[in-house]
Amino acid sequence: MPDDVVTMDKIVALCKRRGFIFASSEIYGGIGSTYDYGHYGVLLKTNVKNEWWRAMLQERDDIVALDSAILQHPKVWEASGHLAGFSDPMVDCRTCKQRFRADHVDHEEMCPAKASLPKTEDRRHDFTEARDFNLMFETTVGPVKDTGSIAYLRPETAQGIFINFKNVLQFARKKPPFGIAQVGKSFRNEITPGNFIFRTREFEQMEMEFFCPPQDAPRWYEEWKATRHAWYTDLGIRPDHLQMREHDADELSHYSSGTADVEYLFPIGWSELEGIANRGNFDLTQHAEHSGEKLEYFDPQTKERYVPHVIEPAAGADRATLAFLVDAYDEEQVDDGDVRTVLKLHPRLAPVKVAVCPLVKKDGQPELAREIFAALRGRMQTEYDEGGSIGKRYRRQDEIGTPWCVTVDHQSLEDRTVTLRDRDSLQQERIAIDELPALLSERLAAPWTSPKLTA
Amino acid sequence: MPDDVVTMDKIVALCKRRGFIFASSEIYGGIGSTYDYGHYGVLLKTNVKNEWWRAMLQERDDIVALDSAILQHPKVWEASGHLAGFSDPMVDCRTCKQRFRADHVDHEEMCPAKASLPKTEDRRHDFTEARDFNLMFETTVGPVKDTGSIAYLRPETAQGIFINFKNVLQFARKKPPFGIAQVGKSFRNEITPGNFIFRTREFEQMEMEFFCPPQDAPRWYEEWKATRHAWYTDLGIRPDHLQMREHDADELSHYSSGTADVEYLFPIGWSELEGIANRGNFDLTQHAEHSGEKLEYFDPQTKERYVPHVIEPAAGADRATLAFLVDAYDEEQVDDGDVRTVLKLHPRLAPVKVAVCPLVKKDGQPELAREIFAALRGRMQTEYDEGGSIGKRYRRQDEIGTPWCVTVDHQSLEDRTVTLRDRDSLQQERIAIDELPALLSERLAAPWTSPKLTA
Repeated sequence: MPDDVVTMDKIVALCKRRGFIFASSEIYGGIGSTYDYGHYGVLLKTNVKNEWWRAMLQERDDIVALDSAILQHPKVWEASGHLAGFSDPMVDCRTCKQRFRADHVDHEEMCPAKASLPKTEDRRHDFTEARDFNLMFETTVGPVKDTGSIAYLRPETAQGIFINFKNVLQFARKKPPFGIAQVGKSFRNEITPGNFIFRTREFEQMEMEFFCPPQDAPRWYEEWKATRHAWYTDLGIRPDHLQMREHDADELSHYSSGTADVEYLFPIGWSELEGIANRGNFDLTQHAEHSGEKLEYFDPQTKERYVPHVIEPAAGADRATLAFLVDAYDEEQVDDGDVRTVLKLHPRLAPVKVAVCPLVKKDGQPELAREIFAALRGRMQTEYDEGGSIGKRYRRQDEIGTPWCVTVDHQSLEDRTVTLRDRDSLQQERIAIDELPALLSERLAAPWTSPKLTA
Repeated sequence: MPDDVVTMDKIVALCKRRGFIFASSEIYGGIGSTYDYGHYGVLLKTNVKNEWWRAMLQERDDIVALDSAILQHPKVWEASGHLAGFSDPMVDCRTCKQRFRADHVDHEEMCPAKASLPKTEDRRHDFTEARDFNLMFETTVGPVKDTGSIAYLRPETAQGIFINFKNVLQFARKKPPFGIAQVGKSFRNEITPGNFIFRTREFEQMEMEFFCPPQDAPRWYEEWKATRHAWYTDLGIRPDHLQMREHDADELSHYSSGTADVEYLFPIGWSELEGIANRGNFDLTQHAEHSGEKLEYFDPQTKERYVPHVIEPAAGADRATLAFLVDAYDEEQVDDGDVRTVLKLHPRLAPVKVAVCPLVKKDGQPELAREIFAALRGRMQTEYDEGGSIGKRYRRQDEIGTPWCVTVDHQSLEDRTVTLRDRDSLQQERIAIDELPALLSERLAAPWTSPKLTA
């Protein structure tokens, strides 16, 4: 691992220490690989999702939003192929009754149930043949517990989009090429979740299905790969820590003519951040067949009727959050020989944009700082902080990635100016209080380059 | 029902026609009482949630955010009482095997399985004794299907807050009084869901738990009732369609010393929009007992150690969205004898803030309109619309509640001015194009009164 990649331990420790992310149900001993987002974590992840929405909805006009239900009709998963094919091969140990992924077991491993046997006995697991184990969570809907009311927690948000294709075509006045975008929770009963929020059983996706005329699909596939790669680098991810890996022919789903992964150099090595796939007309065709509905487009100009092809950029909100945290993390030697931990996040992603601090807790400084706080909070996430030495407060803000700190000192009471400290350059400027709101709004909207690239 | 309350049928029809909300899994015949939000529905509901966050986080500094997992440790529901007590009494029919709510069945009703019997036979249902049926959805987590890995989809977001109380106290540097706020999906296997998005099995909550010293709880209870009532009226709900109903002593949970419902005059009559409860120290005490963790606060100043009391305002995001739709809906006679349907939504809630329309699709008007569109879209949700007559386009925007329409006409090409049409007054002003972005931002931020109140 290159030495400019932080360890996962340091990220996990920072996330807990500063309340970004906690192990879930911690007071009850936890529930494996499930996490709760604390205050700064909610703010950061919300910013990540908002930037995705901004890129999909606000900055173009060929995409509409959707928020489909988590519990859908079971036939959706029959049509999509998840019911039959979304599974891992598993083996059971006949002695200890534990279940393992067939491709992950060591056949010489000791069975805990046989641990007390004499060493001369066979103490290894006694595995069954491998069987497929579906990754969808199953539950029962409605008052009757019979097979008619089985439902699954969706393993992806994409199918909710395909089954609404006709509604959007009819009521949103869109014609191909157009996209439908969705952000929401999905659930997979992973056998081996892990690596913090990289792989969890409950996770949040940001998926968009882009419907286009069949002949244009290859061009849109290339375009979406470039667009999605640029989204990460525009938000500060270092280009040399990001790569586009085209799938080999033998990795492709039978219906896909092209799939690429945006990979990030996580502490666990290069791993998938987002997949971009040319899915052809597979999904619409499947749902048309299973539902009996026509899922196609009639072009009134060319008089052609066709099933659109689909380009799908599918990203993980939790993975993206983790990547932004990892990429922004830095430890720097500072003048006093100390080390400062700093998250060099893009200002638009930073949980808190500005902290307002009175230098001392007296002489009218807290009152003036509160006045500035009140003037800024309506515009952007602002914190008021008067606890501890000013150096300690700067460090705290550095650690959560706050790009600017405003400090009220004795001069502020005389001339209504404050110091504005920059997280990355550590420079302090003297600014008139009345100019602060507009100045900070402007800096927040301005283009930004990661200080890790200019250093 | 007063004649200023729209019928549910009209709301459902508008929601489908304009793509706000669709019945879920519709191409497969639907899955009872489950809905998917379409483009405008996502935008509207997101605005409702954002306004809730703004009131909780941005406009005060005693509340922090949380986003806890949907799948939590089963002990959470043992401690909260949901496992034992969150149930409805149900009866089964021994003949047709259907299940019914005991308090809803008609004991003379005919059993379908006996329908073919001669009329002289007893053709009624043959009910079992009533048994409790838990409303939590159950699933199995992890590779082994045994009782150790049963998990429940959370029936409320609140418990995720209580189990994180200690984390927040330790890592967010808060001391009572302070609150923890959360927005997210919850699931209840309701026997009788219905009334569109009013009661669904999958729904989204906006809950906040406010922790305070025991002696201050009564005061905070009153304060939160007033604050939450004002949130709805500030966002345009007519005060005479909103009421605060204090629960009678016999309606209260055993641990609650006060609960009030914010009720709205829905098409189905006065119904709960939000509950505000003084929950005492019940939840923290329960979780402390079941987990063995100390969930209390030590006040370093008074040297007192206590378990905070909790005030909980718990709102439904879907219900609030429905209330805003119902309250904003209007049908008006217009000059040409036609009826216009209009959603008089608060501009901050409106899915689209401004539509930019060229009067005709030629003479450079579309190009200029596109230029204005590009200048506005970064600031607020903007639509470009050139399809159909201008009157038809205005009606379309009225129907989705767009507060402003900008129209480019032949004069615009000469003097770079446009007309700005107001959704409610129908007045049109002539505005310089360069002044539009700032002017609209200002109007969006300005205080607003529902035109239904001033009419």
